Amino acid sequence: MLIHSASQLLTLTPEPQRGAALGTLNMIEDGAVLIEGETIVAVGRTAELLDAAPPEERLDASGCVVMPGFVDPHTHLVWAGNRAAEFELKMAGAKYLDILAAGGGILSTVRKTRQASLEQLLAETRPRLRTMFAYGTTTVEVKTGYGLETETEIKLLQAILALDAEGPIDLVPTFLGAHAIAPEFSGRPQAYTDCLCQEMLPAVRAWWQESAPSRPLPFVDVFCENKAFDLEQSRQILSRAKELGFPLKIHADEFDNLGGVSLAVELGAVSADHLVKTSQADIAALGRSDTVAVSLPCTPFGLAENEYTPARSILEQGGILALATDCNPGTAWCESMQFVLALACRALKLTPAQAIAAATINAAHALRLADRIGSLHPGKQADLLILSVPDYRMLGYRFGVNLVRQVVKRGRVYPVP
Amino acid sequence: MLIHSASQLLTLTPEPQRGAALGTLNMIEDGAVLIEGETIVAVGRTAELLDAAPPEERLDASGCVVMPGFVDPHTHLVWAGNRAAEFELKMAGAKYLDILAAGGGILSTVRKTRQASLEQLLAETRPRLRTMFAYGTTTVEVKTGYGLETETEIKLLQAILALDAEGPIDLVPTFLGAHAIAPEFSGRPQAYTDCLCQEMLPAVRAWWQESAPSRPLPFVDVFCENKAFDLEQSRQILSRAKELGFPLKIHADEFDNLGGVSLAVELGAVSADHLVKTSQADIAALGRSDTVAVSLPCTPFGLAENEYTPARSILEQGGILALATDCNPGTAWCESMQFVLALACRALKLTPAQAIAAATINAAHALRLADRIGSLHPGKQADLLILSVPDYRMLGYRFGVNLVRQVVKRGRVYPVP
Repeated sequence: MLIHSASQLLTLTPEPQRGAALGTLNMIEDGAVLIEGETIVAVGRTAELLDAAPPEERLDASGCVVMPGFVDPHTHLVWAGNRAAEFELKMAGAKYLDILAAGGGILSTVRKTRQASLEQLLAETRPRLRTMFAYGTTTVEVKTGYGLETETEIKLLQAILALDAEGPIDLVPTFLGAHAIAPEFSGRPQAYTDCLCQEMLPAVRAWWQESAPSRPLPFVDVFCENKAFDLEQSRQILSRAKELGFPLKIHADEFDNLGGVSLAVELGAVSADHLVKTSQADIAALGRSDTVAVSLPCTPFGLAENEYTPARSILEQGGILALATDCNPGTAWCESMQFVLALACRALKLTPAQAIAAATINAAHALRLADRIGSLHPGKQADLLILSVPDYRMLGYRFGVNLVRQVVKRGRVYPVP
Repeated sequence: MLIHSASQLLTLTPEPQRGAALGTLNMIEDGAVLIEGETIVAVGRTAELLDAAPPEERLDASGCVVMPGFVDPHTHLVWAGNRAAEFELKMAGAKYLDILAAGGGILSTVRKTRQASLEQLLAETRPRLRTMFAYGTTTVEVKTGYGLETETEIKLLQAILALDAEGPIDLVPTFLGAHAIAPEFSGRPQAYTDCLCQEMLPAVRAWWQESAPSRPLPFVDVFCENKAFDLEQSRQILSRAKELGFPLKIHADEFDNLGGVSLAVELGAVSADHLVKTSQADIAALGRSDTVAVSLPCTPFGLAENEYTPARSILEQGGILALATDCNPGTAWCESMQFVLALACRALKLTPAQAIAAATINAAHALRLADRIGSLHPGKQADLLILSVPDYRMLGYRFGVNLVRQVVKRGRVYPVP
């Protein structure tokens, strides 16, 4: 199939875009993409590629931007129930950590998720995945973390694998048993930390090798924050995970700086996520590392807070910046990477081009998938978007609606009505 | 037709909701709406109304919220071109009024709009109207103001009338010849003010009475702001418009407080819009009046500014608060009233229920249409939404996507895929 006559074809770069390089779109005007099966075989100008496909296999993208599908590298997409009632409370002034301390917040989602059957979890998650896909996300990372005990955590991994198998969107799993202190260990964070290290991580590894032997191990992530896991507990969990062969991620500096970023860099974590209260020293450490800084601007927005990731500092220090939705029922129920881009331009002071690169190639790097997705180059998976607009800067400039006309996933075209 | 089994049927009130009364949803659980032709004939519980329609004329809304269609009472929807390039500049620090002073900004849209044919304007505006409708807006106010001379301003009124005739969305026209100082009068705001009063307003009135004799005169609006029209010029324009029989609106306090709100109250304007820099004295004046305070939170959001309408003060003083998109190419290209609600909860500290009432019945009042739209009561136009969610608080809680499943406009059902 040939997608041709795109007003702007954004190919980006195969490499992640570090620091000042962020925003390199490598734009081809009147561009075309030749696809065979699930794979891109050529990109170039329409005039060069038009004869490579017969007329019945051509898709006209005139008046449209064609670009890589969004990669959303941080979500908590599998949960049961909702927290709409809590939302009203929060808007009236209650804080996330206060609600957490009172046994509400995340623990109410944990209760509902533990009670839910696998089928129920799949049924509640599918509409969220459909929405993500319709808004242009072609690969999404999904964390466990609403089980907080082995059985439910494995049920969540099963859900992620089952939804990935259903397609069309690709799901990338992360084990986040260390999302909060399990209610059974209330007031005993060290005991839950020991349980994670001694029982849960080995059990997850064994289950994975039995159930999904052909897939790489999932990421292991930890919520390094006051009232969750302190720096030493985070180190203990991540070190144990590393020893077991898991690749690492971390939630750090959402509300307080406990030093999680430097820990992530020290342990070679693939990404460090949130990064609101990050210090200059930590930003410098990120800049010297390959750990991707994943900013989640929907979270401060969702909480009506005004402090966001110091993105421009991260870029000045040479860091690799990515963007994600953080889609979750507590702080940010938003499936749309397009909204993340619009917010990132305003709150993080990114240009539309920078936001696009952070949401595609750099986000792919945050999942160690940059060899396969995140840019449009021969040999890569044919995951791309056809926007209903002719100028990429409409992403960012316009907000609150969907500018995707069609999603192409593994070479197959899906209309977005 | 009977729409039945709605998880929550929000009927609201026929009256506008003033001050502390804002947020009165008058919810009926397991609710039903009986429609004949274009008109609501009954609302109640499903059990009471089910037999009123044969099975083939029933629409099952189980698991859904049913509520009035959104009324968007402030937009600049008819324009040509876009200002995506300017968006990047703004994110880099340039201010709206600086761009205006440099002859860019709004005047670049004026140039393109003057050059555009009526057909071209219709073609560029239709997709915006389709998006608004898909996101649940069933009536939208649309201002002129990108002509700034009689001929183009009348072309814009023609466009509004033509798009209204096309349907399904209803358009309500406003003449905003006083949107900025016309380039021909650069540096001579008083001369343009005199031209508006002596030539343009009478010409518009004569054209209207010739071209749309069956319709009430459009609103007349003025941008009362530094570098646009000062308080005395605003008074001159609005007084002349009132003398000619036009109902009045005003843009006030977006960037500076010039006293426009008190002028609006004094002249009996239907609404005063923007209201960011509004003083306590002006808020008190609003509270004693029937002038609706229309807040446009997408505009500070679009400009990446942190100051919003003091909505809670307006409510404390007994004001009538409404919400609108302000959809325009310069500061806020957003068609979605759902996003306005999500932003209003966070930035204006409204509850979801308050935001819903501000975007329906109070917004209808801001257009003097509350006798016909804005709530679900017998005799009113059957303009309503069927949401894909069972709890109205999902509006506000969730953001960046579309929760509308079907739009019912004048009794006809339109799917939203």
